[in-house]
Amino acid sequence: MEESFDLVVVGGGPAGYVGAIRAAHLGMKVGLVESDKVGGTCLHEGCIPTKVLLEAAGFVSQVARSGEFGVSVGVPSVDWKTLSAHREKVVSRLFLGIQALLRKNGILHFSGEGQLVSPEEVFVSGGENKKLRASHILVATGSRPRPWPGLPFDRERVLDSTDALRLSPAGHRIGIVGGGVVGVEFADIFQSFGGDVTLLEKEERLLPLEDPDLVDILRKEYERRGMSIRTGVSIETIEVGPEGVKITGVDGSGKKELVFDKLLVAIGREARLPAFGKGFSGLPMERGFLKVDPYGWTGISGLYAAGDVTGGLMLAHAASHQAVIAVDRMAGKNPSPFDPSHVPRVVYSHPEVVSVGISGQEARRKGLSVRQGEYPLLGNGRSLIHGEKRGLVRVFGDPETGRVLGLAGVGAGLSELISLGTLAMQTPQGLLAFQGTIIPHPTVGEALWEAAMDVTGDALHR
Amino acid sequence: MEESFDLVVVGGGPAGYVGAIRAAHLGMKVGLVESDKVGGTCLHEGCIPTKVLLEAAGFVSQVARSGEFGVSVGVPSVDWKTLSAHREKVVSRLFLGIQALLRKNGILHFSGEGQLVSPEEVFVSGGENKKLRASHILVATGSRPRPWPGLPFDRERVLDSTDALRLSPAGHRIGIVGGGVVGVEFADIFQSFGGDVTLLEKEERLLPLEDPDLVDILRKEYERRGMSIRTGVSIETIEVGPEGVKITGVDGSGKKELVFDKLLVAIGREARLPAFGKGFSGLPMERGFLKVDPYGWTGISGLYAAGDVTGGLMLAHAASHQAVIAVDRMAGKNPSPFDPSHVPRVVYSHPEVVSVGISGQEARRKGLSVRQGEYPLLGNGRSLIHGEKRGLVRVFGDPETGRVLGLAGVGAGLSELISLGTLAMQTPQGLLAFQGTIIPHPTVGEALWEAAMDVTGDALHR
Repeated sequence: MEESFDLVVVGGGPAGYVGAIRAAHLGMKVGLVESDKVGGTCLHEGCIPTKVLLEAAGFVSQVARSGEFGVSVGVPSVDWKTLSAHREKVVSRLFLGIQALLRKNGILHFSGEGQLVSPEEVFVSGGENKKLRASHILVATGSRPRPWPGLPFDRERVLDSTDALRLSPAGHRIGIVGGGVVGVEFADIFQSFGGDVTLLEKEERLLPLEDPDLVDILRKEYERRGMSIRTGVSIETIEVGPEGVKITGVDGSGKKELVFDKLLVAIGREARLPAFGKGFSGLPMERGFLKVDPYGWTGISGLYAAGDVTGGLMLAHAASHQAVIAVDRMAGKNPSPFDPSHVPRVVYSHPEVVSVGISGQEARRKGLSVRQGEYPLLGNGRSLIHGEKRGLVRVFGDPETGRVLGLAGVGAGLSELISLGTLAMQTPQGLLAFQGTIIPHPTVGEALWEAAMDVTGDALHR
Repeated sequence: MEESFDLVVVGGGPAGYVGAIRAAHLGMKVGLVESDKVGGTCLHEGCIPTKVLLEAAGFVSQVARSGEFGVSVGVPSVDWKTLSAHREKVVSRLFLGIQALLRKNGILHFSGEGQLVSPEEVFVSGGENKKLRASHILVATGSRPRPWPGLPFDRERVLDSTDALRLSPAGHRIGIVGGGVVGVEFADIFQSFGGDVTLLEKEERLLPLEDPDLVDILRKEYERRGMSIRTGVSIETIEVGPEGVKITGVDGSGKKELVFDKLLVAIGREARLPAFGKGFSGLPMERGFLKVDPYGWTGISGLYAAGDVTGGLMLAHAASHQAVIAVDRMAGKNPSPFDPSHVPRVVYSHPEVVSVGISGQEARRKGLSVRQGEYPLLGNGRSLIHGEKRGLVRVFGDPETGRVLGLAGVGAGLSELISLGTLAMQTPQGLLAFQGTIIPHPTVGEALWEAAMDVTGDALHR
């Protein structure tokens, strides 16, 4: 009933399954414990299904504009069932891919809850009752949506982001509490498919982590499309009654009462901690998440953690990257420590909001000698061709050291282009390398290049 | 009647106007001679207007697929006049931008033909008759489409790429001679807007400069869409008669006769050389183009050239880059020499075909220790979301030196992503930097990252 492994991974999301594959490549014998489907929140309830809906939303708004460029197509009719089936098809194709990868790499998948019995033992319960002995354990149990205090998700009126995927928004008054990434992306989806959307945020602006100038551009676009956006709102009560969900709160203009048919609560996520056996007193925590060093080590010999369960930005690509670092460390390799400032952030709204590294405000606050280069997408040929008129990109660099320190922007297509900034940040003379790069004409990339040139006052098209 | 300048630029396209702006930034007094509109072939007849049409073409094919993801819009109706007006609007907006930039930078624009009277004098004829005295001259007179021998462009049946922009393709049998970038892009446009397209190429495959495996994927897609593609065709005669344009030729399967309503001749471009005064015996040439060193110097004191008139790939972004190098050199700065292997090539077809740097074949031919990493877009979440199932990306790297030597691919969205490869090529440890870059999930960029990881056998999702 006992099996031995070099590594047992608890949790099969972007941290867990990627860590498992990396370990297998390094010659380790790997067991993966997951009670649900491998792929995790990201694949089944997060990044992937939301982006399928956002892609369709983008198409709907392109249709609305297409008369301008001479292609008339009439009013689009959305078949929510077909869109849902398509969403599930994309997810299931990627799910099959991950399963095939695990098999190909000889990773044993144990179906059930993983309980940490000791730093060398994981007990699999629920599915197969089995004890796994491990030289190393990687905890990658992820996170789950945080409910509004005292208001459980009822899946009918009060929804989390998973429920929201399945909501056909047409004809509903939909409230969203929380103007972070999840709230902002679902606002786009709901509004595009006929929902009447109100977005509520307690801070003075949406996407509080991002550059205010860029967020302003997004907000104006959302308001132009007819969404109601209320920031600086202090919610006092949320009640579910027969007529809907009633919210009372206060904002700059006084006390308000709002009623919605559906309420999406998107106020953040909380760690999904693993279960611990009787003899195991738990793991070091910080603010509700597992505490790890930049290599994912928990401080207990052989015991690592990666991904959402360790807090931070809680992004799939950060999770995978952390897992690879942790596994490399276990294997005695010499990985670079995890640096959150090199994790790109993308909001897949229309227009997209992206950032990586330091922001202008941050630099000034820290007294760094950072210079900001900027370029408006209105001056960029490809952006005009795409019909993008509002966007803006910024590059932050230090002309003294020649480093790129950050990149941020708002506009169509930037989710892909942010990686130019992230790549430039990886190299000591990144600013010079960026400026020396020949960018194809016409591309949106040219706007980023102009912004990089503008850091040293050398932009050609400003 | 005579005016003195630090630099006189002859030609106002992507080499000329960008060189002029760069020189103005460096404090030079600059005159620009152009008989037509500034912006050149690229803006008025090339890159920009074709991409407006290709963007609309892409939308039409997205409409055809949209039922799959639940958004029904009916059959699109294309209004060629509105599309043409939109094309002209985008061009004119960018044209106004360039004019404003020239004014803002204090560059004097002389309207007329620039004749090189001596290495220090340019005579402007046609418009303003004026002699300009110059410490430096930059020749940037560009290129023009090469006609089929003995068959002049009649603008009615026998078209060049400029005429092709204005052709409403619906209902026409359209032949295209030449399967290079121009032929392949116009085939996409004509077919998308209802033309009956036949593409003829003398080499055994389309896009002879590009990786055969990638071009095969494009060809299959074109054939699936109903285009007729004939490669390895040796054309014997082209005759214009009352029934159309008749082509006789031979391919692998014997002698053929084809008749078209319209024929686009896209067999390359030839230099548009400047006029020379009596006392000036001309400039050194090579294969019909001006011969320059990697800094754009012609070998005659003070006399530089950049862009299409110097031959090579004849791409707008290469032209601008060459012009900046030439101007920096004149100004006594120390620019890096022009390296054609760092110029990205993009075909804006659906799917796009892109490449930069060395190819696998080339590396093997030269006996370099290059390793190829590869990733199919079918395994990439964002590509599946975009509906892209055929694409493929390749990264070429040298694990010994840690350099990225090239990148190539076929698929949607790669025109922007090629710049990741070009940027990685700028830095000595580019492969490590690329592999160490955290790419947002889900993006197409992840596929390029997997290919970069695959160079050292470290791909995670293969």
